[in-house]
Amino acid sequence: MTNIKDIARHCGVAISTVSRVLNDHPDVSDETREKVLQAVNDLHYIPNTSARNLVRTSSDTIALLVKGVSNPFFSKLIKVIVREITLRGYSLELHHMDTSEDELLIGAQLANERKLIGILFLGGRFNYSPEELALINVPSVFCTYTNTFGNLDASAYSSVAIDDKQTARFAVDTLVSLGHRRIAILADNTDDKSISELRFQGYKDALASHGIPFDPVLVACAGTFSDMGAIHRATSELIARDDSFTAIFAIADLMAIAAIKALTDHGKRVPEDCSVVAIDGLELSEYTLPTLTTLVQPVEEMGLACAKTIIERIEKHGENRQFTFHTALRSGGSVRQLDR
Amino acid sequence: MTNIKDIARHCGVAISTVSRVLNDHPDVSDETREKVLQAVNDLHYIPNTSARNLVRTSSDTIALLVKGVSNPFFSKLIKVIVREITLRGYSLELHHMDTSEDELLIGAQLANERKLIGILFLGGRFNYSPEELALINVPSVFCTYTNTFGNLDASAYSSVAIDDKQTARFAVDTLVSLGHRRIAILADNTDDKSISELRFQGYKDALASHGIPFDPVLVACAGTFSDMGAIHRATSELIARDDSFTAIFAIADLMAIAAIKALTDHGKRVPEDCSVVAIDGLELSEYTLPTLTTLVQPVEEMGLACAKTIIERIEKHGENRQFTFHTALRSGGSVRQLDR
Repeated sequence: MTNIKDIARHCGVAISTVSRVLNDHPDVSDETREKVLQAVNDLHYIPNTSARNLVRTSSDTIALLVKGVSNPFFSKLIKVIVREITLRGYSLELHHMDTSEDELLIGAQLANERKLIGILFLGGRFNYSPEELALINVPSVFCTYTNTFGNLDASAYSSVAIDDKQTARFAVDTLVSLGHRRIAILADNTDDKSISELRFQGYKDALASHGIPFDPVLVACAGTFSDMGAIHRATSELIARDDSFTAIFAIADLMAIAAIKALTDHGKRVPEDCSVVAIDGLELSEYTLPTLTTLVQPVEEMGLACAKTIIERIEKHGENRQFTFHTALRSGGSVRQLDR
Repeated sequence: MTNIKDIARHCGVAISTVSRVLNDHPDVSDETREKVLQAVNDLHYIPNTSARNLVRTSSDTIALLVKGVSNPFFSKLIKVIVREITLRGYSLELHHMDTSEDELLIGAQLANERKLIGILFLGGRFNYSPEELALINVPSVFCTYTNTFGNLDASAYSSVAIDDKQTARFAVDTLVSLGHRRIAILADNTDDKSISELRFQGYKDALASHGIPFDPVLVACAGTFSDMGAIHRATSELIARDDSFTAIFAIADLMAIAAIKALTDHGKRVPEDCSVVAIDGLELSEYTLPTLTTLVQPVEEMGLACAKTIIERIEKHGENRQFTFHTALRSGGSVRQLDR
């Protein structure tokens, strides 16, 4: 069994340093922190939780309730959250639910059945009311979404998300800065009171800010984030409707990959005939041809924030907080400067 | 709340037909079955399980214990299994574990804690002993693997898998039939007593059957199925070592995608300079450029077999059975006939 000394030896740091990392003390450099966490992972170190258990009540179990199963961005985020929660000596239960189910109802049921001490909701509605949220009687954090369309008081919930609207604006700005003005959007839909609507709004805002008229003909709705066939069809229909666009903003990496295939199938080369930019920053899309230009969600930092926030809420009854993360542009081969 | 009449009306079939589908009677056409299941899905029908509950013991919960989280083939299979188990009136709990953990230990613990009535293991070792398997005291099915390297009696376990060795042979045969003889393999490793070793053996068998000498120089081990960076590096090292090969057999779709990127980065066009064939048949790889030529695992049929087998074992104490599914070649743009 690996112990804390093995970790210290492996990293060439003091035992007290390892302890500081494991207990989240601030006075550790990012580099050291990363090295120690990597060693914890590689050596399969399991923290001794007996001391912590003394102050615990019913169970030590936090649930991670995941909405939808085939989102590769979620897969990575789950990995980070599982690692960070386990590292801090808590048990994590992973539960999945269908996108058609309501996370608050399922969460409330789980909390009672499993004597949970907290719930991380991975994916959910952006429009909770106070009455709905009251179903959940343990600390919770909304991961990858926040209460944009609801009416919760900021003191009533914690969330870790990106600014979907702002990120979409930035994606479109990137295309405009390369000379594009005829820019299509590939979305799930435009009124889901969720990620897709927010990114659609950001697209419209960006066009407006550059004095580019909004043209509904250039809006392609696939009705899905993950069904590649439906996304390919929506893109093909867009091309059939009006192929004068020189760029597509796809609201997710997988959608961009299916769109690039559809463009290619219709004789449009990417990026020569059409530029494509997306949001997500999947590892996969660094390996597709062309590689994707995309706004990368900081998945490591987001996962860490989810874990730390729920544990602070549980251990210290810390205040609710809303974290908004910034994305970063990862340049790939899917965009080009328009000739003037 | 949707009821069975709604389903019947929606499909234009008799209520008794819907009932037959839901209870798995054989006298229903595939077309009707599919239509009814689609409606069950679309209308969110929840089967009434009270009648069945009478004959149940402790709980109605089957666990699906998934090893590793970032395998897109698993994502699809999970969807099918969740649908099929729920449809039959049982509850499904989805649990995840790290690839470094042992599924039998975790499964035994879960079975006790959760009062499970059955466990579906999604991914696991190919080398259980009878003593190890005895840890699991509820019906179980090994999904996507079987006991190739272990010494279990066929009456002691149920499994649903493809024949990994035979499928790999078929992949290599496909390349040979197109005139390739200098064929590299991109594997996880060659002695994992698991999928990668089996597919490596199939590769060697195929070469031998065609009188092509095995050349260890052409074996690239990435040490992973999913880390795209590591797979890209392993392919680059292969190219640096010996770039005389005209084709690569990648043992999984994601590996093939990273390999195609590496080949392209080294100035080798796919399929003009190098053909690539893989195993999995992900939806994604129909949308990459070039599209992938791959052996498709029948994920719908495999998921259905997993669900039916565990339920027969639970309800009727049915005999243990091992199912071996065949894959089908899906032609893409990643292979070409060699000039003679």
